[in-house]
Amino acid sequence: MTFQEPVIDEQKPALDYIFHPGTIAVAGVSAETRGTGIANSYVKRFEAAGFKGTIYAVNPSGGEAMGRKIYRSLKDIPEQVDFVVSAIPARHTPQLISDCAEKGVKLLHLFTAGFSELGDETGNALETEILSVARQAGIRITGPNGMGIYCPKTGLTFDEGFTRKSGNVGWIAQSGRNGTYVVRDASMRGVYFSKAISYGNAADLNECDFFEYFRDDPDTEIIAAYIEGVKDGQRFFQVLKEAASVKPVIIFKAGHTEAGSRGAASHTASIAGSSVVWNAALKQAGAIQVYSLDELVDVLVLLNFLSRPAGRNISIVGFGGGAGIQAADACTDQGMKVPESPQELQDELTEICGGRAGSIFKNPFDLWPKAGSKGTSAAIESISGWEKTDLLLVHIQFDLNPSVRNMMYRPYLDTLKRLAPEIKHKTVVVLDFVLSAEAKKLSLEVQSVLAEFGYAVFPSVNRAALALGRYINYHDRRKPAGNLFV
Amino acid sequence: MTFQEPVIDEQKPALDYIFHPGTIAVAGVSAETRGTGIANSYVKRFEAAGFKGTIYAVNPSGGEAMGRKIYRSLKDIPEQVDFVVSAIPARHTPQLISDCAEKGVKLLHLFTAGFSELGDETGNALETEILSVARQAGIRITGPNGMGIYCPKTGLTFDEGFTRKSGNVGWIAQSGRNGTYVVRDASMRGVYFSKAISYGNAADLNECDFFEYFRDDPDTEIIAAYIEGVKDGQRFFQVLKEAASVKPVIIFKAGHTEAGSRGAASHTASIAGSSVVWNAALKQAGAIQVYSLDELVDVLVLLNFLSRPAGRNISIVGFGGGAGIQAADACTDQGMKVPESPQELQDELTEICGGRAGSIFKNPFDLWPKAGSKGTSAAIESISGWEKTDLLLVHIQFDLNPSVRNMMYRPYLDTLKRLAPEIKHKTVVVLDFVLSAEAKKLSLEVQSVLAEFGYAVFPSVNRAALALGRYINYHDRRKPAGNLFV
Repeated sequence: MTFQEPVIDEQKPALDYIFHPGTIAVAGVSAETRGTGIANSYVKRFEAAGFKGTIYAVNPSGGEAMGRKIYRSLKDIPEQVDFVVSAIPARHTPQLISDCAEKGVKLLHLFTAGFSELGDETGNALETEILSVARQAGIRITGPNGMGIYCPKTGLTFDEGFTRKSGNVGWIAQSGRNGTYVVRDASMRGVYFSKAISYGNAADLNECDFFEYFRDDPDTEIIAAYIEGVKDGQRFFQVLKEAASVKPVIIFKAGHTEAGSRGAASHTASIAGSSVVWNAALKQAGAIQVYSLDELVDVLVLLNFLSRPAGRNISIVGFGGGAGIQAADACTDQGMKVPESPQELQDELTEICGGRAGSIFKNPFDLWPKAGSKGTSAAIESISGWEKTDLLLVHIQFDLNPSVRNMMYRPYLDTLKRLAPEIKHKTVVVLDFVLSAEAKKLSLEVQSVLAEFGYAVFPSVNRAALALGRYINYHDRRKPAGNLFV
Repeated sequence: MTFQEPVIDEQKPALDYIFHPGTIAVAGVSAETRGTGIANSYVKRFEAAGFKGTIYAVNPSGGEAMGRKIYRSLKDIPEQVDFVVSAIPARHTPQLISDCAEKGVKLLHLFTAGFSELGDETGNALETEILSVARQAGIRITGPNGMGIYCPKTGLTFDEGFTRKSGNVGWIAQSGRNGTYVVRDASMRGVYFSKAISYGNAADLNECDFFEYFRDDPDTEIIAAYIEGVKDGQRFFQVLKEAASVKPVIIFKAGHTEAGSRGAASHTASIAGSSVVWNAALKQAGAIQVYSLDELVDVLVLLNFLSRPAGRNISIVGFGGGAGIQAADACTDQGMKVPESPQELQDELTEICGGRAGSIFKNPFDLWPKAGSKGTSAAIESISGWEKTDLLLVHIQFDLNPSVRNMMYRPYLDTLKRLAPEIKHKTVVVLDFVLSAEAKKLSLEVQSVLAEFGYAVFPSVNRAALALGRYINYHDRRKPAGNLFV
């Protein structure tokens, strides 16, 4: 097997071949007698991810590991090698790249650190040398100092336990840990990836290349990025603008302070740039800017599950007056409207719930759960059917004493499952008050069921409100003037 | 047993007797043959909390529950009753208050809802009637529409599973759920309570009474409040200012928007007031204002564990470049300084860690954990010993693949335990990247150990930085001019 060539499918963007290697070689695999390292993990990860081609192990010391021969050199491998992953010390990489060139390798991923991010002459010289050989030989490089490529369709991955389910998000991260965190969190919340790249120092392939790719990739509908710095600001702005004009692009730019940018320089040799310039550029390009990984995933979840709302009105329902008030405050602060419910709806809810004591029916709605599953269901159906419910926020709390908790979340869960076809496109569910490990376990189970049913799920009303504000503003900016939305 | 009278200890503030009942009666307990309700839970909770006096059950229907006789009336109880908890329907409360008056009850807690928060004449009239009888008879009331009193020293509680450990925080909440959430979260993080009151509509005893009490209570060192509205703004401001002049006061004021204040009116009959006025008043009174329960507990944790820092410089250390950069950004944004480390310290760390590849030694410090327990320990000791480390933020991530996680958190935990006597007063520990139930369980175990060792623990760098900014500003405001701190 070899790379799928771009000529096979003219619909695919030029860079598509890097996600379709036929064979992989991992450099730095230790023979089992000598212990095990990160390179060995890569071999296991590709196997577990269902990579269909052959995976070769390479190490000058030879030996055997994981039931396979370790080749002493790339050049000893008896067939074409498309993709090489390197976890060898930086000082050995010049030999490796020269072997790659001889072998006709198309893509090299350098997990290896110790290049330009060191900020010294040795590191810079090494990176320049590798790059120069790669360019001559037509080898593309991801990294150095990154985790690699995740593409569930073709069995590529850069960490253990990533889901094999494919999705619609194209994600790039200049930090490996951040790259994995977002994949894990998003997939636990029902959002999956077309491709993700942890691209480290971006010596060769960089954020611009990936944005261009994602823009044209039919499998990618939403683009997200964690960026510490870019080398060519002008190209970046142009590429970002083009991408954002066809697909939503979410960007978390780190290193916006002096200390943060010092960190970015040492981490991935990035020049972080002025935050004023960045903020203005992202806004002008039409990107959605966020300020943490959690905020990034929160917006991904909304873009994935919700449909463009008809307006800014939101109804808030749950069990707990304090939580409802905070949700009303937070939603208003983020630019939504929380309209008061009409008398007819209040009367209807009073009847459904058998009285008013302990409940609030004005929006925010606080439903004391004595109405049980049937009453809760009828109440939420009435509220979601109200013409002013452009959006619906349902909050459920978990760290209550168990008897109250069980009385509470089950009617809500039943209701949300039953009403999913009608309301999931405009509903966010907050699973809140999760303190103990037991509450966490239960809330994750509920989250998983709700995500299966197509719901956007959040861990707090404040996070839901912040994401909703960004989501609404995004749609607002993209809508022609003169609409009800503003 | 009867109430501990204030005359016994002249040091104690006047209201102290409400936390020392000798006997309790719970009104509304159901005979076991008729099922069980909230009143039955109160009986069980007081028992579990170690209340030393007798707990009586009352219900006009009589019968037996939890091995005790249910008295048909308060008046049938054969001894003095100090404290009555009512969970009976609102319409029966006039009879109850009249029985309380006859029986010489000193404190009535009304869990019962259905009073002024309904916003109608019936509810208002009922509340006025109850209050008038209470005033004549010298009965104080907490609630209605609240959960009650938590005082671990005397075995009072308002929810299941509250710790019996006493602490230094006096806490009041106008929402029952919020009241319990803060007690649970804080005590999981090593912060305990002198007294907490979920005070609902505040028909009689209100936030002013409790602030006055906490101000003079020798067991209370920190005061915190969740408030939806106050009835007497002038008195509130005066009392708050006096309390804040002797002890730190943290306030989360909810209902700052139109919809939020509509919720507050329906929830606890509160007039939320203008947020501009509130913000100005809280600032002028010297209170620390927060905007969520999580933020409130975060500041509590710092006030409990840290000593006033020598300055605004913070050193950031952990494993993960991206996380370090975000922490540096967040700390700078919140008014701290993240100074660059001197060359000698960088050289020392390079030697300790056996090289620079994969690490950052400039602050933020990113320690690739190959140095093991001994190296990590030496590195953190060097960093914390640096003269510019006024504050130290240590971040540990949990949702990594298990082999990396174990390699990582153990050396950090060992180090923090060993260095606790020297560094705990200036260190915050962030247990971050907690997604799975398994990671949550482990991080809570680590949190519990760290809290035992006297550390302030946070779930994200952003939350730690926000709380630190507030904590530093609080101390800054209280310091005379002309110091290094500004």
